[in-house]
Amino acid sequence: MTRVLSGIQPSGEIHIGNYLGAIKQWVAIGEKLGRDAFFCIVDYHALTNPLAYDPATLAQRTFEAALVNMAAGLDPEKVTLFVQSHVPEHTELSWVFTTITPLGDLTRMTQFKDKAAKQEAVWSGLLMYPVLQAADILIYKADTVPVGEDQVQHIELTREIARRFNALFGETFPEPEALLNPEAPRVPGIDGKAKMSKSLGNTIGLLEPEESIWRKIQHLPDDPQRIRLSDPGEPGRTIVFTYLSYFAPKELVEALKEEYRKAGIGTLTVKRILFEEMMKVLRPIRERAEELKKDPDYVMDALLEGAKRARAVAQATMEEVREKVGLLLPSKRPVYR
Amino acid sequence: MTRVLSGIQPSGEIHIGNYLGAIKQWVAIGEKLGRDAFFCIVDYHALTNPLAYDPATLAQRTFEAALVNMAAGLDPEKVTLFVQSHVPEHTELSWVFTTITPLGDLTRMTQFKDKAAKQEAVWSGLLMYPVLQAADILIYKADTVPVGEDQVQHIELTREIARRFNALFGETFPEPEALLNPEAPRVPGIDGKAKMSKSLGNTIGLLEPEESIWRKIQHLPDDPQRIRLSDPGEPGRTIVFTYLSYFAPKELVEALKEEYRKAGIGTLTVKRILFEEMMKVLRPIRERAEELKKDPDYVMDALLEGAKRARAVAQATMEEVREKVGLLLPSKRPVYR
Repeated sequence: MTRVLSGIQPSGEIHIGNYLGAIKQWVAIGEKLGRDAFFCIVDYHALTNPLAYDPATLAQRTFEAALVNMAAGLDPEKVTLFVQSHVPEHTELSWVFTTITPLGDLTRMTQFKDKAAKQEAVWSGLLMYPVLQAADILIYKADTVPVGEDQVQHIELTREIARRFNALFGETFPEPEALLNPEAPRVPGIDGKAKMSKSLGNTIGLLEPEESIWRKIQHLPDDPQRIRLSDPGEPGRTIVFTYLSYFAPKELVEALKEEYRKAGIGTLTVKRILFEEMMKVLRPIRERAEELKKDPDYVMDALLEGAKRARAVAQATMEEVREKVGLLLPSKRPVYR
Repeated sequence: MTRVLSGIQPSGEIHIGNYLGAIKQWVAIGEKLGRDAFFCIVDYHALTNPLAYDPATLAQRTFEAALVNMAAGLDPEKVTLFVQSHVPEHTELSWVFTTITPLGDLTRMTQFKDKAAKQEAVWSGLLMYPVLQAADILIYKADTVPVGEDQVQHIELTREIARRFNALFGETFPEPEALLNPEAPRVPGIDGKAKMSKSLGNTIGLLEPEESIWRKIQHLPDDPQRIRLSDPGEPGRTIVFTYLSYFAPKELVEALKEEYRKAGIGTLTVKRILFEEMMKVLRPIRERAEELKKDPDYVMDALLEGAKRARAVAQATMEEVREKVGLLLPSKRPVYR
């Protein structure tokens, strides 16, 4: 792992599932790689389905995705954090990759098939976005891409595109590896459903008001088999303890499980402790976010500085690509006789 | 007609069919519109099939397409003549258009269906290039696009993309009209086949050596029914007279036809006259081309100057597009409270 590219969806509302599943890993990668950790807020991708987003709020959501990630620990002075559309070379490389990608490679992508089956009109962006994704990664010659299980097939496509480009035009791109994070918990939603997700409406937002978070924690489903306070409880049957394990020290969690099993402690008490421990982690993030909201110029300038660094790399790659595929470079003037 | 975009294929070898069918019309448009006549050497499009072009010579061919068109009358100081890849905003708008184009609109294009049927592996570029073409046109808000019959369907797609963008994001683009040139002759090949075309190998190149052109004219098929010199001939049965009509004054053509019908003149004599009249038109083009080859910096600087003018327009359009679709503009900083 010498250079990483990770895409951040421009969803303003970022929840504890994102934080525990991705942002903490990004922060660790940033500590290790510094400016070779490229974090890209992928606003071109957010356009993919024109009926599924609101053009009036996308810019704000893009900005807030940057702000919340910065508040949660992505330090733009350490890593390279930028907005995709500030580096338009991504789309240029995407066109070059489009020309060397067999159509069948795109129509057989599982995500395309699944999503196309659900749409009335299938937009071309749904078919083509894995090619843009390959450009996002390869324009920085990243060798490692932290992703979830559902993106592994797209990284394999990226590897194939890199291989094909290298075969046609000479060795240029590394074949990047998908980095699955085995430590990332699959955070369940507050309804106890498999996964916390904005589209399921079962999230706890990083910046959500405290009283709203407390209300959600109060309503977390308890162990359904513990009817009376005097019944012994089983921690594995309530997500209260799952959440607790993310935020509280291990010894405290074990001690509380012990009490819960002995009916020595009520669920409401555990929930109060969960809330307190969660807020210990969230409060510094929220305070930092408040500070950043008071100084949006700092956020924007940091993004532009990130884009400048990213663009220097992207432009060098494109210069190499243009020459290799045979585009006319202003610097290469033909001589006759 | 207030602004025109026309794409020029980066084929170094330009033949009299191109000259009579397209370049003469472009020169006339340039006289009328000046810098609002955008002539774009479409090198991104030349990549569309990676197995069908030679990366080692594409840049040279791109340069020579510019050079020959300039020699044939496209004055880069009057019109806006530039290389597509020098204005990478084309690919950025192409991505935006990809997201608003139903996949079915692309798979039903006649050219896609015809060409896909002939290819073993169908490349994604074949499917997507009409979207890039729409971006080529609309990024300059051109209202008129001179094309051949085979491109009319793609211009209709461009109109649909413009309409859809306007409906989704507010009035932005004109709906451009295809301009068919009723005066453009469909120049037959030297083999007498329907169309002169590089792929059929039946061309007379604008810059071809004189002796080679003379040899080709000598071998043009004669009226097959005129066996002996004393037989009366029918000018409509030989392309010698077709070519003659492109290059010689009308009165001379009529006089020669008259003689030909009366068996008063041999085919070889007509061919000699055709050669002389053709060279009267071609010689100044060839001389100008020789001059330009001695000064490739002039050609390149003219192209870069053209790209600069084109890019100013393209960037203004993209700024408008970015804001309308909701990408984060550096100039639009959010304010909190």
